[in-house]
Amino acid sequence: MKIQLKDALSFIDSNTYNQTFDDVTKAHQALLDKSIPGNEFLGWVEVNAVDEPTLKTIQATAKRLQEAVDVLVVVGIGGSYLGAQAALQALKPYFPKEGVEILFAGHHMSGLYMTELLEYLDNKRYAINVISKSGTTTEPALAFRLLKNHLEARLGEAAKDYIIATTDGSKGALRTLADEQGYESYVVPDDIGGRYSVFSAVGLVPMAVAGIDVEAFIKGAQAGYETYRVPAKDNPAMLYAATRQSLYRLGKKIEMFVHYEPKLHFTAEWWKQLFGESEGKDGQGIFVSSAGFSTDLHSLGQMIQEGEKIFFETVLSIDTPLSNLTIPSDQDNLDGLNYLAGETLDAVNEKAQIATRIAHVDGDVPNLVLSLPTLDAYHYGQLLYFYCFACAISGAASGVNPFDQPGVEAYKVNMFALLGKPGFEKETQAIKARIKK
Amino acid sequence: MKIQLKDALSFIDSNTYNQTFDDVTKAHQALLDKSIPGNEFLGWVEVNAVDEPTLKTIQATAKRLQEAVDVLVVVGIGGSYLGAQAALQALKPYFPKEGVEILFAGHHMSGLYMTELLEYLDNKRYAINVISKSGTTTEPALAFRLLKNHLEARLGEAAKDYIIATTDGSKGALRTLADEQGYESYVVPDDIGGRYSVFSAVGLVPMAVAGIDVEAFIKGAQAGYETYRVPAKDNPAMLYAATRQSLYRLGKKIEMFVHYEPKLHFTAEWWKQLFGESEGKDGQGIFVSSAGFSTDLHSLGQMIQEGEKIFFETVLSIDTPLSNLTIPSDQDNLDGLNYLAGETLDAVNEKAQIATRIAHVDGDVPNLVLSLPTLDAYHYGQLLYFYCFACAISGAASGVNPFDQPGVEAYKVNMFALLGKPGFEKETQAIKARIKK
Repeated sequence: MKIQLKDALSFIDSNTYNQTFDDVTKAHQALLDKSIPGNEFLGWVEVNAVDEPTLKTIQATAKRLQEAVDVLVVVGIGGSYLGAQAALQALKPYFPKEGVEILFAGHHMSGLYMTELLEYLDNKRYAINVISKSGTTTEPALAFRLLKNHLEARLGEAAKDYIIATTDGSKGALRTLADEQGYESYVVPDDIGGRYSVFSAVGLVPMAVAGIDVEAFIKGAQAGYETYRVPAKDNPAMLYAATRQSLYRLGKKIEMFVHYEPKLHFTAEWWKQLFGESEGKDGQGIFVSSAGFSTDLHSLGQMIQEGEKIFFETVLSIDTPLSNLTIPSDQDNLDGLNYLAGETLDAVNEKAQIATRIAHVDGDVPNLVLSLPTLDAYHYGQLLYFYCFACAISGAASGVNPFDQPGVEAYKVNMFALLGKPGFEKETQAIKARIKK
Repeated sequence: MKIQLKDALSFIDSNTYNQTFDDVTKAHQALLDKSIPGNEFLGWVEVNAVDEPTLKTIQATAKRLQEAVDVLVVVGIGGSYLGAQAALQALKPYFPKEGVEILFAGHHMSGLYMTELLEYLDNKRYAINVISKSGTTTEPALAFRLLKNHLEARLGEAAKDYIIATTDGSKGALRTLADEQGYESYVVPDDIGGRYSVFSAVGLVPMAVAGIDVEAFIKGAQAGYETYRVPAKDNPAMLYAATRQSLYRLGKKIEMFVHYEPKLHFTAEWWKQLFGESEGKDGQGIFVSSAGFSTDLHSLGQMIQEGEKIFFETVLSIDTPLSNLTIPSDQDNLDGLNYLAGETLDAVNEKAQIATRIAHVDGDVPNLVLSLPTLDAYHYGQLLYFYCFACAISGAASGVNPFDQPGVEAYKVNMFALLGKPGFEKETQAIKARIKK
């Protein structure tokens, strides 16, 4: 991981930066000596949630399923879904020719999606990986009920061999069910929050089934830990944290995650959860947003270039071309593109990136560039770890607990009240009275 | 289209609202009497860009391709891509069982995507719909070169029967090529900008090939025109424009487009282009953002509930359930969800929507709700028209020309300079000197 900040730093006075870097340095220290707010959730830091034997078991499971099924349906929401979704999209082909198809469910409550998914599965051999710490989160629990019924209707008793539960190690609804039914199961550790869980079985099981080298992915993250744990002025995670917090203090309210490779779309979504949920609290926090270029230069580009300047951009750049597809010459050259003949498409894409960065900086948009050497399992593991580490110290430097999410409960309480969930009788009465008005 | 504003209006004082509504009323008048800034681009207003015979031709083309190919590759970017993508996702099944598969290209410059797409097409019968006013926009022109070569290598002369050009009526590179080669072709009207073009051949050709009822789509939009042209305090387009501009004047810098049905993802992307590109200029404009719930309640929910309150939400709600999938009872009820047995998933999703709205308003987030009666071609056409109409008067009320996009050129000039495009020699020299520093 390299990070280039020159275009961002020109927007930050050295006083602000130095003060912020001091705060980041303290947060970095607090993360490593475990005095950071939310220190009961540091199980991800040393990237050791999955031990060697468990990793082997995951790989064996993956191999078994690769031979037995066409589809794996991953049931989860939030942190139990986004890490795997991001990694699968980033590391698998755009148009896969082989391997297990990975589909998701329980990440929303569209009845139409679920209806059509069940119909689609009618003609497929499939397995389910249900991921939920408690087993009672409404969205995945509802989807799992429907899928489990569907699979049992087809396979009877044998359905249990095609259900893998990733859940609490000792308690909760899904743990009880898994133990009773004899599902293969993995543990969601107590000391890792959802958005930091991609290096645990939560992320690794779907990735392994999809054929991703999870060992390399873990090794990349571990290498990240060894790098980012060392405090330094040029520690990329500290630099990123200090730069974005400086910009926020100077009135840049929004960070826009930008990439130039469509398969990084869900990496941006994962990043938005990580930073938005870690920092958006106590009435403060950088508002998270994302864009895929050059696609969105033709949609959001105008607003970025000439709109209100309350945001900055962080570009995730991939240093090595992912393809050598070359632009052909054309006899008639009506489109006037022969000056690019013989160039690769990736080289033109890279020029677009440099060009845009200059244009946006000229338009008063601070630009940070994160450079990833290449897009493979090892470097992708390091990238996601980089974000986790930077997020923890960035959040703590801003004065919040980067590991809790107290605000997520508000809509759930209202929803349980509206749905008439047992135990919420008082809330039901209150909300119904309120709606009537 | 209905619009509910009560939760938003409680955040707006009546002075601000009344003043803003006056500005919107003037913009509404200016749109209809064609005195609005950018009045050379009003070809979309009366929804008559495609006449009856052309619509019949589009439908005949669609029928021909439905019988002849497996895949249609739509080549376009920005407004030449997002409208069709949005409509296809909204109106086609999640898991299509039949019909022509619609893929996109030329909407970015990933060499990897293009490489894999060409490999995928090796085994498919396919046609190309290339959409570009000029025919020289870099992204689609490069993709079209590659695809045209690929198709001609397979079919030779006959390739021309599988290429449909949607382009300028009389001039430009693609018009010349289409006329020379005898491609079937459609017109991108001179008086309709890209982001307002979904009701022209730009949007209609791919939709028709995908089997969408384009006649109903157009009729819905025309019904929208008849409704929104009438000035009134409760005209939904005027209400939406006045409310969002009032909130912006009161310091709400970001609008978050929210939906509860994943197939509205690209509708949000289309909306972001429409409003971001129309309003983000002259150093002002609402920053556009989007979220899909309940998915993103588990990622962005914390930030929305407790982060810095510089945004408001506009929820696109669908009034009629799209599915009657029912939650089954479970003997053991370990997940505690039997209290929902017999309910539909859509009913629970609706309760989540009401619950979230109350929670977010309690958390000081103004909420607007747009209600769409149902999700079919007719109502979807009306919805997109609603947004176009509201956007035009909202932008004009904010004091900008809602039909231009001068800021989009900045990165292009830099890119042409970096790529060494003929005619940009001076810019090439300047940018190279600059990068060296």
